[in-house]
Amino acid sequence: MVKPLIEPFSLVLGGSSGIKPYKVRLERRLSDLRGFFHNRRLVEEKLSRGENPKVYEVYEVPQEPVSGHLSLASTVIFPGKVGDEYYFTKGHFHEKEDASEVYIGLEGEGIILMQNREGEVRHLRIGPNVVLYVPPGFAHRTVNVGSSRLVFLAIYPSDAGHDYGSIAETGFAKLVLEREGRPVIVDNPSYSE
Amino acid sequence: MVKPLIEPFSLVLGGSSGIKPYKVRLERRLSDLRGFFHNRRLVEEKLSRGENPKVYEVYEVPQEPVSGHLSLASTVIFPGKVGDEYYFTKGHFHEKEDASEVYIGLEGEGIILMQNREGEVRHLRIGPNVVLYVPPGFAHRTVNVGSSRLVFLAIYPSDAGHDYGSIAETGFAKLVLEREGRPVIVDNPSYSE
Repeated sequence: MVKPLIEPFSLVLGGSSGIKPYKVRLERRLSDLRGFFHNRRLVEEKLSRGENPKVYEVYEVPQEPVSGHLSLASTVIFPGKVGDEYYFTKGHFHEKEDASEVYIGLEGEGIILMQNREGEVRHLRIGPNVVLYVPPGFAHRTVNVGSSRLVFLAIYPSDAGHDYGSIAETGFAKLVLEREGRPVIVDNPSYSE
Repeated sequence: MVKPLIEPFSLVLGGSSGIKPYKVRLERRLSDLRGFFHNRRLVEEKLSRGENPKVYEVYEVPQEPVSGHLSLASTVIFPGKVGDEYYFTKGHFHEKEDASEVYIGLEGEGIILMQNREGEVRHLRIGPNVVLYVPPGFAHRTVNVGSSRLVFLAIYPSDAGHDYGSIAETGFAKLVLEREGRPVIVDNPSYSE
């Protein structure tokens, strides 16, 4: 079988999209994150008032889902909160259980929440000049705990796949909330193992 | 089989080693690159005078060579030339033919030379804020064409493996030489397909 030649390419980091050029752009508004924030009543109130702010954007340069290839994506999480809970990404496990991911912080201040199938939780800071390794088996969610955009680059096996369902069902075991102007990590009272 | 838990971790970019902390440090001096520079006579003359400068250093955070894991490494190529040929890394194919690699430029100015088994050659610039994708099947060598250190981060499947032998035997099809203070890419007269 003759394999198609994939051409080398380069991207520039920075700017509003984190990388450029990119191939795919996604955006997630509050309405897309219904059920993810702990104060669900407040989310419904905002939406019923017509408030549907953009929470984050993803700019991807995907590769075919074939072993050995790496996909690139930048994520821009806007500053904001739902009540006392900082804006975050939905979070997902990889469908391919052995797939890891590398994050590189570009702008802003964030916390990566990680949780494995056994419910073990880890968290690490992300920001400019930080490289972070999410090992296989850990669901990962990124939380913007600063007052400006949080931007980071993710590099992952292109066949990793995304399992958003498990997290949508159980939630994360921890929440990142603002207390006296600072982020604190607390148990999620509605977490169901 | 219970898989060992690999802990999430983070590293800081920058400083003399490009990343810290790191696990493994390698250095390559002129004597390690015997046969790689096109002016072999000049290399032998330098070595016989006791000149054996450091050409590059690699700082690694490797993972077990298991599918889905990603290894990290920073490379520091010092500024310098052998005659008119800029300092470079040995260059290698991946043993696993489908393994790609992502580079992120941190400091300095460089050129990545890439070449596949069919002898097709590509080259791209690397430097701060550049992300570069080396697709599967391309041998890759990095050349420091600036007057200061060239530093970059590499992210690659931890089971990619390194095949230095093919390149040591044939050389790269192209050389990067200084002409009137600027880099030019020329055919390698001693390249053997």
